[in-house]
Amino acid sequence: MKFKASFFIAFLFVISLSKIQAQDVPRNTINIPDIQGYKTLKCDFHMHTVFSDGTVWPTFRVEEAWQDGLDVIAITDHLGHHAKNKVDADNFNKNYEIAKPEADKLGIVLIKGSEITRKYPYGHYNALFLNDLNLIDKPNCIDALKAAKDQGAFITWNHPGWKMPGEIPVWDSIPELFYNNGLINGIEIVNYTSYYPLAFTWATEKKLTFMAGSDIHNPSSAEFNYQKGEHRPMTLVFAKDTSIASIKDALVQHRTAVYYKNYLFGSETILKSLFNASVIIQNPVISIDADSDNNYYTYIKIQNNSSIDFDLELSEVDKSLKVSEKVTLAANSITVLNIKPAPKDIKGVKEYILKYTVKNLFSSPEKGITVEIPVKINFS
Amino acid sequence: MKFKASFFIAFLFVISLSKIQAQDVPRNTINIPDIQGYKTLKCDFHMHTVFSDGTVWPTFRVEEAWQDGLDVIAITDHLGHHAKNKVDADNFNKNYEIAKPEADKLGIVLIKGSEITRKYPYGHYNALFLNDLNLIDKPNCIDALKAAKDQGAFITWNHPGWKMPGEIPVWDSIPELFYNNGLINGIEIVNYTSYYPLAFTWATEKKLTFMAGSDIHNPSSAEFNYQKGEHRPMTLVFAKDTSIASIKDALVQHRTAVYYKNYLFGSETILKSLFNASVIIQNPVISIDADSDNNYYTYIKIQNNSSIDFDLELSEVDKSLKVSEKVTLAANSITVLNIKPAPKDIKGVKEYILKYTVKNLFSSPEKGITVEIPVKINFS
Amino acid sequence: MKFKASFFIAFLFVISLSKIQAQDVPRNTINIPDIQGYKTLKCDFHMHTVFSDGTVWPTFRVEEAWQDGLDVIAITDHLGHHAKNKVDADNFNKNYEIAKPEADKLGIVLIKGSEITRKYPYGHYNALFLNDLNLIDKPNCIDALKAAKDQGAFITWNHPGWKMPGEIPVWDSIPELFYNNGLINGIEIVNYTSYYPLAFTWATEKKLTFMAGSDIHNPSSAEFNYQKGEHRPMTLVFAKDTSIASIKDALVQHRTAVYYKNYLFGSETILKSLFNASVIIQNPVISIDADSDNNYYTYIKIQNNSSIDFDLELSEVDKSLKVSEKVTLAANSITVLNIKPAPKDIKGVKEYILKYTVKNLFSSPEKGITVEIPVKINFS
Amino acid sequence: MKFKASFFIAFLFVISLSKIQAQDVPRNTINIPDIQGYKTLKCDFHMHTVFSDGTVWPTFRVEEAWQDGLDVIAITDHLGHHAKNKVDADNFNKNYEIAKPEADKLGIVLIKGSEITRKYPYGHYNALFLNDLNLIDKPNCIDALKAAKDQGAFITWNHPGWKMPGEIPVWDSIPELFYNNGLINGIEIVNYTSYYPLAFTWATEKKLTFMAGSDIHNPSSAEFNYQKGEHRPMTLVFAKDTSIASIKDALVQHRTAVYYKNYLFGSETILKSLFNASVIIQNPVISIDADSDNNYYTYIKIQNNSSIDFDLELSEVDKSLKVSEKVTLAANSITVLNIKPAPKDIKGVKEYILKYTVKNLFSSPEKGITVEIPVKINFS
Repeated sequence: MKFKASFFIAFLFVISLSKIQAQDVPRNTINIPDIQGYKTLKCDFHMHTVFSDGTVWPTFRVEEAWQDGLDVIAITDHLGHHAKNKVDADNFNKNYEIAKPEADKLGIVLIKGSEITRKYPYGHYNALFLNDLNLIDKPNCIDALKAAKDQGAFITWNHPGWKMPGEIPVWDSIPELFYNNGLINGIEIVNYTSYYPLAFTWATEKKLTFMAGSDIHNPSSAEFNYQKGEHRPMTLVFAKDTSIASIKDALVQHRTAVYYKNYLFGSETILKSLFNASVIIQNPVISIDADSDNNYYTYIKIQNNSSIDFDLELSEVDKSLKVSEKVTLAANSITVLNIKPAPKDIKGVKEYILKYTVKNLFSSPEKGITVEIPVKINFS
Repeated sequence: MKFKASFFIAFLFVISLSKIQAQDVPRNTINIPDIQGYKTLKCDFHMHTVFSDGTVWPTFRVEEAWQDGLDVIAITDHLGHHAKNKVDADNFNKNYEIAKPEADKLGIVLIKGSEITRKYPYGHYNALFLNDLNLIDKPNCIDALKAAKDQGAFITWNHPGWKMPGEIPVWDSIPELFYNNGLINGIEIVNYTSYYPLAFTWATEKKLTFMAGSDIHNPSSAEFNYQKGEHRPMTLVFAKDTSIASIKDALVQHRTAVYYKNYLFGSETILKSLFNASVIIQNPVISIDADSDNNYYTYIKIQNNSSIDFDLELSEVDKSLKVSEKVTLAANSITVLNIKPAPKDIKGVKEYILKYTVKNLFSSPEKGITVEIPVKINFS
Repeated sequence: MKFKASFFIAFLFVISLSKIQAQDVPRNTINIPDIQGYKTLKCDFHMHTVFSDGTVWPTFRVEEAWQDGLDVIAITDHLGHHAKNKVDADNFNKNYEIAKPEADKLGIVLIKGSEITRKYPYGHYNALFLNDLNLIDKPNCIDALKAAKDQGAFITWNHPGWKMPGEIPVWDSIPELFYNNGLINGIEIVNYTSYYPLAFTWATEKKLTFMAGSDIHNPSSAEFNYQKGEHRPMTLVFAKDTSIASIKDALVQHRTAVYYKNYLFGSETILKSLFNASVIIQNPVISIDADSDNNYYTYIKIQNNSSIDFDLELSEVDKSLKVSEKVTLAANSITVLNIKPAPKDIKGVKEYILKYTVKNLFSSPEKGITVEIPVKINFS
Repeated sequence: MKFKASFFIAFLFVISLSKIQAQDVPRNTINIPDIQGYKTLKCDFHMHTVFSDGTVWPTFRVEEAWQDGLDVIAITDHLGHHAKNKVDADNFNKNYEIAKPEADKLGIVLIKGSEITRKYPYGHYNALFLNDLNLIDKPNCIDALKAAKDQGAFITWNHPGWKMPGEIPVWDSIPELFYNNGLINGIEIVNYTSYYPLAFTWATEKKLTFMAGSDIHNPSSAEFNYQKGEHRPMTLVFAKDTSIASIKDALVQHRTAVYYKNYLFGSETILKSLFNASVIIQNPVISIDADSDNNYYTYIKIQNNSSIDFDLELSEVDKSLKVSEKVTLAANSITVLNIKPAPKDIKGVKEYILKYTVKNLFSSPEKGITVEIPVKINFS
């Protein structure tokens, strides 16, 4: 009796204690290692606010970027005339100015940018590292791009296949003209939930920087199902430090990769560095005698410290070993890889190299990278 | 060889197919049954946009309400002078006007409202069912409330314990004055993540309508962890139909309940109706002989068709039965309740009534409702 | 002070109240509608226990099936000599006998079965609806199958591509022999996480019943990530009632479909019935005038009452309409489909048929089914 | 056309590639830091298999422990005569012998133990670090405990309130007798989903080691809702290394804490060490001028590297600062703490100590620990 009473009395007070102060937003950690002496920065250079056709306030873009674990963002609203239903600013730099103090507070690097937006056949282009957006509000597309370039902008071709049949991009006279005038420096291989393999190929051939942009208009939590482990597409930038100059330098020098769903797109060198920096191969256990057909002889443990699952498929192995043909090194986990050395008469310590294709790390649209896992087995 | 090739070729096309059109937002179903001849409407009468200190555009409030499974919302921005950093409207009805077409499209009932906001000792009050917000922009709090009342407003006292020591509300001369002048018709028992037991008591004693408001400023998906099954607090309104007149009538006649976390707060009659309409008791299986101490003799299955888990604790039972003392009827599930009839010498069919307290359905801050589960056992 | 005290005092008691009685397991609801006058039964005819090489006790197979929302299961252990490390039974029916009372309690239909297991080139075969497993323990594979047939067994060829190069099954002299002798009645198109398109083709050509089996050895919750919405593969059986005779009749008459991840595999007729029984098309909203290029003229709402997301891709439409080319009808949700009628000069009510391919409902490995969505637009 | 074809052709192959090899189980990482020069080991010393009344095979206990992120386990089956429906072993060490090779493979430390089980008024006792279980199979409870002690066992009193009215444990003549004879060395403060505050008090007063046991009979994934972030209760052991001798030494020396839901129970010293080792306080940002009442002057970032959310409530602060009264330092995240220094006329650098109670880290049933957060503010 007394007992039940205390439950309810407690209830009178306890619940009112649980008020959460929304300003105290926690930041998720995305584990992607630094490589080659550079810091790996998680960046989204493409998003909108109520200052064009987005639905959120600029400060919110910063707060959600903080929560999403990003390091660098650019708010790239279409200039005001594209946003007649939304907030009508006479100063196109206002979204940046509103967001900047919040970015400083949370330590998010905010790049000043804009999306130069024209109908087909021109397309959409992000100009990053701008000084004054008011100066690029030109009626003509190429004039706008040149005005951005005059401010030292790094320019990307956005969602190149958008509204094209089958969403397949076409490199016709317009991109050719812009490209030849130095007005396309990077290209979005991924935009929102679309992946453009052809853009991947062009990026490699034409030395354009690999880019990915979320292009979010709504809150990121409304666009991506974080519940199911989704994240927005990101450009990984490998920069000397978090200064704007270093970030720009990395973009100009093509030191980027694209992180989309559970895929990475980038150069073979960069992807291999990311894989090797993520993975620790623990020493193989000393072999033990099997007591039946079902027992494995030995196993190694592979620790994956990154937030990316690596999907491995065996590409080459010494015939005398039987190892898992397909294995996923789950994110932030340790995976056991079973190894069955076939010839029972081998003695002593023997070294092997297992070669796996990482099916979700693409150095071209047709090709996953190949990685090597060294194994040392003690046949006692 | 050919095999691996087809994987990658396929990959060239497949992924670009997955573009999702964000306008095509699905709507979650929240199962709460209709009762007593009324429709059960899921309502949130308290939220903000960029037209005061919120961070989202009015149309987004409608879209997320649709997704969250709500039927009725009110956008209740503080009037413009509270929002100097945000959008400066000279027409205080503009948030409503922007949201209305989207609400019509999605079939969300949009109530025109405003939050009349004053510093301590006055507090915050939602005026619902307004015609023209510009007419209630008065310097004096009571004048603003009266101006709202002149438009036939239903007025609620919001988050009554906010900023009070221990978040415990105080009924002093201000609420007394407003209440005596008919300027408080409902009271928020729950606001955002705060629950006010004292407001619950007052609502019962003073015949104020039970209200709950999310009071969200950011996107709801940024405020509540849908991943862990959270939902925003809702006012359940039991209305003849979805017309604004019927909704207002239900509020005036106190036909509401509060749905907060996994709790319901409301009158005993309403909560019992909700429980009984949610739960189907399947016939008990005919008893079988036990082959050991561990086996139960019989069991009934209880189907809970609502989205609410019911936490039951036995309050009274015929001494001759042994049944689970605590059991949760999980949402949208069937639960098996084990029953052990003690006296082995009983024969024939016998009926019992199990009385359980539903620990999370409160008809007062101190009291869960009691429900009855009839059981018929065939002692063969 | 007093306040803090009550928190802790309450804590002394409250937590110890939360003991959950594990027997009271809730059952998840999987919504797949009944069709064509038959009940749709969710079945898993393939699983193992400690009575062969599985890791769980037979009663647990029943309890997890109840939780997983299944209606019918068969425990199909390899006969005892395959299980030398596990429980050594001299009676091969013992797993069934242990599980049966629990199945009766929970209302799970338990089919008596066994997996007749031989090394390549023979393979694994499930014999269902057996009377006595001890009688089928024959050294020779075909003798075992015939002994099962003598008991009226329905026999399926399990995981036909298992251990084959590329997991691609081969129809050589062994299956040909068994098939010609009536010893293969069904075939697993899906086993665990493997899908065999070639088996799908054979099933259609050779009139074998479409089957899917989880083939679980560990607890289902250890094999499938329920957290991410996974479920085990199921055979959907369309039976007159839940009697064993009706279930067997449905299998013999090929009235099944396979439910695997978010795919359905089955005959066109059955899949269309499932789609049409799942989906309710709400009346189109009366058209409204657009105030800008961005606004849609009208929209219909499509309610999907099933647990399956339907991925639709437009295959044919009246040229005068612009509708979403790709849309997902999310499970247990309502989806809004935007429609833009192009010619602005049409007046009055006009009817259209939208034809969509359901990309995840396959009537053959190459072909999603096509469905029709009728739309009536009021051009006012 | 060609396009659609390639989708389906791809589908013919892609899906059959996804076969997962269940042996390759990934291991979740639970982040709890090492303290005081000891390794922090995550241990579960209480669980069952089919060798008593559990439902899983011993090897599965090891595999799920690996997946659950545990370092050390004991399988503590009731001796065989309690398990007449399950596997009947004539050798009570068999569960250990079966599990040991799998434990060696995965690097899980397996402690040989047993649950000595008697009906009321005796209760259940875990004997850990045994050599031979067959020697402790005595009819008399105290004889069994003494036989265990003869093998050097560490003995815990399990679920002391089980089946007692209100689940409240009673220290009567039986525990008194056992305790006085050195037959109770530790006590379960938490068992499965029950918490015993009184056992917590006794542990402190009588110098018994704090223990928690899952007492699982079904698979852990069937008992705990990992989907909602649940984990099984664990005993945290602070040991010199992972040797059995060091683990035993830690238990004997009371170097443990209990990790239950999001609570830690333990000595003040240990809990403070765990908090301090988990949390990194980043330097406060240099103060900036506020442009409105809503903006904060400064903020610090607190990084919580542990898997435990810390729920902080302000207990004492310099009056001149306004800081969040309640804040949760979310697991594996960085939280921003807003600080508003009231007196605007202060100049130069000033240091403050914020004192918070950690509401979910209990050094006694009535008392959360207090922690200090130093803040340095630059009033420029």
